[in-house]
Amino acid sequence: MVTEQHKAKMNYISYDDSGRLHIAQTHIPTPKTHEVLLKVAAFGVNRADLLQKQGKYPAPKGDSEILGLEAAGTVVACGDSQWQALLGKRVFAITAGGAYAEYVCVDAEQLFDIPDGASFETAASLAEVYLTAFDAAIRVGGLHKEQTLLIHGGASGVGSAAIRLAKQLGAYVVTTQSSEEKCQYARQLGADLAINYTQDDFVAVMKAGGITANVIIDPVAGEYISNNIKVAAMDCHCITIAMLGGRTVELDMAHVLAKRFNLHGSTLRNRDQDYKRALVKAFKEQFASCLFTDVLHIPIFKTVTFSEIELAHAILHKNENLGKVVVKISL
Amino acid sequence: MVTEQHKAKMNYISYDDSGRLHIAQTHIPTPKTHEVLLKVAAFGVNRADLLQKQGKYPAPKGDSEILGLEAAGTVVACGDSQWQALLGKRVFAITAGGAYAEYVCVDAEQLFDIPDGASFETAASLAEVYLTAFDAAIRVGGLHKEQTLLIHGGASGVGSAAIRLAKQLGAYVVTTQSSEEKCQYARQLGADLAINYTQDDFVAVMKAGGITANVIIDPVAGEYISNNIKVAAMDCHCITIAMLGGRTVELDMAHVLAKRFNLHGSTLRNRDQDYKRALVKAFKEQFASCLFTDVLHIPIFKTVTFSEIELAHAILHKNENLGKVVVKISL
Repeated sequence: MVTEQHKAKMNYISYDDSGRLHIAQTHIPTPKTHEVLLKVAAFGVNRADLLQKQGKYPAPKGDSEILGLEAAGTVVACGDSQWQALLGKRVFAITAGGAYAEYVCVDAEQLFDIPDGASFETAASLAEVYLTAFDAAIRVGGLHKEQTLLIHGGASGVGSAAIRLAKQLGAYVVTTQSSEEKCQYARQLGADLAINYTQDDFVAVMKAGGITANVIIDPVAGEYISNNIKVAAMDCHCITIAMLGGRTVELDMAHVLAKRFNLHGSTLRNRDQDYKRALVKAFKEQFASCLFTDVLHIPIFKTVTFSEIELAHAILHKNENLGKVVVKISL
Repeated sequence: MVTEQHKAKMNYISYDDSGRLHIAQTHIPTPKTHEVLLKVAAFGVNRADLLQKQGKYPAPKGDSEILGLEAAGTVVACGDSQWQALLGKRVFAITAGGAYAEYVCVDAEQLFDIPDGASFETAASLAEVYLTAFDAAIRVGGLHKEQTLLIHGGASGVGSAAIRLAKQLGAYVVTTQSSEEKCQYARQLGADLAINYTQDDFVAVMKAGGITANVIIDPVAGEYISNNIKVAAMDCHCITIAMLGGRTVELDMAHVLAKRFNLHGSTLRNRDQDYKRALVKAFKEQFASCLFTDVLHIPIFKTVTFSEIELAHAILHKNENLGKVVVKISL
């Protein structure tokens, strides 16, 4: 390691058994050979963080137990001299946990540069949602131009990113969300058809419009899966990324067979580093040039400070956000 | 069309409402532009035929209503002069129905040559099971060397073909079947571990051996799917090709997500012709050289004559067969 900062202590966000968050101190982590150490300027808040503090989404073995799946900051140390050229660079990345802190280790081959003029807050809002949406819709789902993507939760961070990527590809985008305000938001991002599920049944609306989905991003599961099959085109890929609607799913295999339906469970977090490096590389090749432009812009719903972290979690818990919630480190 | 045979009549196997089979007469079909007409010498019997006569697996729109998904015979006419060089050739192929007859139309780009010395009966036993197994295990499932393939129904036609292909690839093969005799049969074809499910629980046996499956071919569905997840490796692909165990499946999405499990419904019959042409081409490139050799040999359990067709269906209905049942045309 190039600097001696790791012997020092840092502030991070800890939580107690009831899930209450508070600032605590621990040692600054030491980057491994393939890692660099970031001085964190901002980090993104994700629904997975809420599940993790409830014990429902434990960190993969060997990863940091500290919350936080993405960070933006400056490279201040590296685990091996081959990464020395990265020192001082402004970057953002997904993390194997640990981003709710003043310092975090990240894989040296999963970094994105932050262009001049772009803020750390914006950068902190991009990695997790774009890589998750890219992995689900394009790499697992195989979405391409002239296909239709159905996204449940179109106003969520991943939903927002998926709308942007799909429109950039040239696909037709249908989204479902819980309010007219969120429908409006999804349309502004580019959704061709935004359905308020508290008022309309998405199956009925899609059937009435003669619309079938080639790829579906589903964080709901539960009863949604069988409804997804009803609106699926032949060879549809449904990528389940969470199970907000319940973990038990009943399938009619006659419909699965007749439509050659493909149901995938997919989470980015438990992928190995090689997969994540390849994912970052593929994403950059296809989309990096428009990441900080209007084309892939996602609104930041709220930026809070380190000590206001409870507020950030409350927004996600109440499903209030249109786009991302970001935390800025300024103690 | 090159000959005038299509004006003549031919014998075929018809069935009544109770599913009883009998010989009937109809016009010889006329090949379309992309088809040739085969004088059928032998055809394979598949479980799908039994479902079709029960009204449970109707012919795709536009396809022949006559039973039969594969045939071997001689090209006697063609729908377009570009296929004239095929006249007189001994070939076999999958068919879009219609193989339970003296003549059947087949796609000109889906033909396999029958080598000198090989019989029509052997040829009639190969296309449906090998293309189904290849499509499921390799194209949809992505099976490769050093992975493990689990096959339910290892003594069935598709099961037999899947064992052969997987062993030729270099994969490890686990099969389940209903008797010790069928286990012995599966082992003879190359299965590394054959489990008699009437005596042993496949989940327990695989767990005891520390074996997980990367790809699963499942014609059972029902309760098998959740058991498949229990023995699935990370990123497992489970390809459901039938639902002999019931059409209702209950899934625990927590397990689907944790293992990034992929459940595919796949049937070869309802694929379009372009897909089938590409499938035949890919199969030939990888395996055609060993199709009539010991490497891909599948035993023919029973050959019956045209008028003994009821016997052929009874064997499949009672699940008695080890390998394929073939019908030879000799009225």
